[in-house]
Amino acid sequence: MANSKYEYVKKFEADDRLPPSNWIVVRIDGCHFHRFSAEHAFEKPNDENALNLMNVCAVSMLEQFPEIVFAYGVSDEYSFIWRENTQFYQRRASKLLSLCVSYFTSMYVMKWKEFFSYKELKGPPYFDGRVVCYPRAKMIRDYLAWRQVDCHINNQYNTCFWMLVKSGKTQKEAQEYLKGTQAKDKNELLFQQFNINYDKLPQMFRKGSCIYREKVEEIVKEDGNANGVTRTRNKVVLGHMDIIGPNFWIQHPYILQED
Amino acid sequence: MANSKYEYVKKFEADDRLPPSNWIVVRIDGCHFHRFSAEHAFEKPNDENALNLMNVCAVSMLEQFPEIVFAYGVSDEYSFIWRENTQFYQRRASKLLSLCVSYFTSMYVMKWKEFFSYKELKGPPYFDGRVVCYPRAKMIRDYLAWRQVDCHINNQYNTCFWMLVKSGKTQKEAQEYLKGTQAKDKNELLFQQFNINYDKLPQMFRKGSCIYREKVEEIVKEDGNANGVTRTRNKVVLGHMDIIGPNFWIQHPYILQED
Amino acid sequence: MANSKYEYVKKFEADDRLPPSNWIVVRIDGCHFHRFSAEHAFEKPNDENALNLMNVCAVSMLEQFPEIVFAYGVSDEYSFIWRENTQFYQRRASKLLSLCVSYFTSMYVMKWKEFFSYKELKGPPYFDGRVVCYPRAKMIRDYLAWRQVDCHINNQYNTCFWMLVKSGKTQKEAQEYLKGTQAKDKNELLFQQFNINYDKLPQMFRKGSCIYREKVEEIVKEDGNANGVTRTRNKVVLGHMDIIGPNFWIQHPYILQED
Amino acid sequence: MANSKYEYVKKFEADDRLPPSNWIVVRIDGCHFHRFSAEHAFEKPNDENALNLMNVCAVSMLEQFPEIVFAYGVSDEYSFIWRENTQFYQRRASKLLSLCVSYFTSMYVMKWKEFFSYKELKGPPYFDGRVVCYPRAKMIRDYLAWRQVDCHINNQYNTCFWMLVKSGKTQKEAQEYLKGTQAKDKNELLFQQFNINYDKLPQMFRKGSCIYREKVEEIVKEDGNANGVTRTRNKVVLGHMDIIGPNFWIQHPYILQED
Repeated sequence: MANSKYEYVKKFEADDRLPPSNWIVVRIDGCHFHRFSAEHAFEKPNDENALNLMNVCAVSMLEQFPEIVFAYGVSDEYSFIWRENTQFYQRRASKLLSLCVSYFTSMYVMKWKEFFSYKELKGPPYFDGRVVCYPRAKMIRDYLAWRQVDCHINNQYNTCFWMLVKSGKTQKEAQEYLKGTQAKDKNELLFQQFNINYDKLPQMFRKGSCIYREKVEEIVKEDGNANGVTRTRNKVVLGHMDIIGPNFWIQHPYILQED
Repeated sequence: MANSKYEYVKKFEADDRLPPSNWIVVRIDGCHFHRFSAEHAFEKPNDENALNLMNVCAVSMLEQFPEIVFAYGVSDEYSFIWRENTQFYQRRASKLLSLCVSYFTSMYVMKWKEFFSYKELKGPPYFDGRVVCYPRAKMIRDYLAWRQVDCHINNQYNTCFWMLVKSGKTQKEAQEYLKGTQAKDKNELLFQQFNINYDKLPQMFRKGSCIYREKVEEIVKEDGNANGVTRTRNKVVLGHMDIIGPNFWIQHPYILQED
Repeated sequence: MANSKYEYVKKFEADDRLPPSNWIVVRIDGCHFHRFSAEHAFEKPNDENALNLMNVCAVSMLEQFPEIVFAYGVSDEYSFIWRENTQFYQRRASKLLSLCVSYFTSMYVMKWKEFFSYKELKGPPYFDGRVVCYPRAKMIRDYLAWRQVDCHINNQYNTCFWMLVKSGKTQKEAQEYLKGTQAKDKNELLFQQFNINYDKLPQMFRKGSCIYREKVEEIVKEDGNANGVTRTRNKVVLGHMDIIGPNFWIQHPYILQED
Repeated sequence: MANSKYEYVKKFEADDRLPPSNWIVVRIDGCHFHRFSAEHAFEKPNDENALNLMNVCAVSMLEQFPEIVFAYGVSDEYSFIWRENTQFYQRRASKLLSLCVSYFTSMYVMKWKEFFSYKELKGPPYFDGRVVCYPRAKMIRDYLAWRQVDCHINNQYNTCFWMLVKSGKTQKEAQEYLKGTQAKDKNELLFQQFNINYDKLPQMFRKGSCIYREKVEEIVKEDGNANGVTRTRNKVVLGHMDIIGPNFWIQHPYILQED
């Protein structure tokens, strides 16, 4: 039973290779996570376990896919930056997208129990994703700044909102209360009403999470050498630093180096 | 801290809506499943549990996404057919692809224990995917025939190959032995050497798995009605029938009905 | 001086082949023809010479490109329908588009003198273009109906508008006068005020122009045969018939035949 | 007669806007110009009139489309570089392509008589075209170097080829004769057999043609000012210089300036 008569259907597959010399962002985003986080009683405004689970999945992404040079996560979303000239699967958009979102999802379910040992999954967590090309490293920095500013704006709002709700307001009242307030107003509200210094809240909540490679020196024990040998290797690390200003990038010039 | 200065980066997102009036196939495929199936000691040539797990995930896909009209699975791959004029996420290719592959992956990990209660996952199972458009229902039939013929060819080969290996040949010897043989030769080999009538092997192995909706009548118990009321509803069903010939399609004309 | 060091730039060319089994429409449209027609004093609402020039160019398109099966023109636009499975330049969109628009433009300038012997071209006439795929013949019929209805609506409006202007109204007054009128009102206006029966105006103005191939029998003179021999060949013909209703298509089933 | 029932066909038009912050090259190329140049008895290896005609068309392109920052032409092809952030027709690929190729074609036919006053056009000259995006100015320089090296290689070969043919060899013999020769060999052949110093041949033949804008000071006569006023303006100029090395670009940094 030869298959040749039907093989013409393969011709309908389009060539979806992304253009060369462009940085590639794959951003994934929890689907219906509003409901998912409610069903699983995530703490508000930030559930540390849920964020740690996201981070552990993202770390394993960089370990699995060496051509991802940086990842940035906030809430239920994560952006993965592929180096500008990666030849991974010939830069086919559908391959990059599907592998990222599938690997991440798989890790998320597998690692769930490590972070929520006392909670069963009530339904499948899943993510949508998109792929975007950026022609210059400068734009990747702006992309990441865009996400980190968004993290800040949302976190500040959510912190106020949930403090108001916890203090007895309805969600509707809290929303009304915050309408039109500026950043400054929100900080004052937190301080005055709840004695919270916003800048002292955990960095992870305020800055999101960054994953990248750091050169580290390790002492490796070898046969016949009691003291061990020093080796340099790239280690995937997690941090919660500012990536809007230039400092981080001055210290890590190799991450977004253009060819 | 306004975000407007960085928002220009959103302009780099391309419009990836698929053309109207085209049937959409999302095909997902196990990534490195050769290794994955070895690590988890899947039975060869077909592991019934592994196939049942794939099928249960695919059934839940049709329950989750009502605009998928048909799914066909074989080995570690599954094709999902979306109806030609679905407006799901405005037909955006990246949304359709990422949601399908992520939901499927999530189910696969969640349901693993139901099918492999005695085996721990040793690494994350994950899938790649692609999206293809077909302008006419006739071509979807040819697409599905292409996959089912492939199922048959591969299964016949694999059945011979693994019987030879189990009978003492090395993998290399088995490969050599089968080189150049025709379908007929393989059937004879199975019958003569191993007393296997190929056509009596389970349909699922020979035909793959089809998932679709069937109108079923159900008797529903209601208050004050001891006998219950008959209701018609669409039920997602699983079968292993031939979809190359016309019979199935004549009996289920609504599945691939063009607008 | 080897060129290999720079040849990487070729990799940036994208594959723009159109999907198989889709009818391809290339529509070209006069660029700034409002100004162009004013500069060259085209008659209003319809300049017969200008339309004939468009038509002669389009006829030569079908003679030059045998895979164009139909063309429809109105005013300064023309649509060219390529047969659904044409392999012309591997269906590359940029080739189809550029060749159509360039060939048409070239003919337009070359033939100008035949239609406007007393008028010099004051500036270069040029056209923009686009390429659109349609998955079914039915949609090509709807596409053409869309253009022909548009022709009718515009022509009826323009006929009224220019009659009012010729009778002494300013363009602004004419516009005001026609605001909100229905088709019926416009026909009555033409009849009552200008004694024009709209339905008696030339078909070319009301229906636009259709170009296609007709099987014709020709008597060919051959050596030693005084009476000649009858031969059938495809001849490119021009007509101004209705293509919204089914009649034309029933009589010419081969034009939009699906494979 | 409302058109709404058919307007759905507009939904099949795809969004073909090119990504932001990319330099856009539109390259057009004579279609069947081998035959065209034979029919019109172009001089070999270079017809000065034909090249001048190409150049005059390209100059008028830069005058017509201010967002084209540079053009490079050789033989029957021309490349037009659009500035990286042009918003011309929202960067729609089909608009950029069709307008370039149509305007150029129109000028070519209109200007023909100025360069070939004694020759009638025997058929329509026409061009195909393509659009390519480059993410960085550096790549545009490499693109242009690629074309100019190609110009050199072809011109050197063609000069030898046609001198051999003019000296009595058949085209086939000339081809055989040149097989495997290096640049150095060809220069020597020209010098020894034909007393031609390749480097003394016209720049236009060896380097191709560059069109760009140069800031020029002009003395403008104004009312009441007998001596005139000095004004600076951008003037479209034509040159035949080297654009592979850095000199030209150091002197004209504004042409490929990145935003």
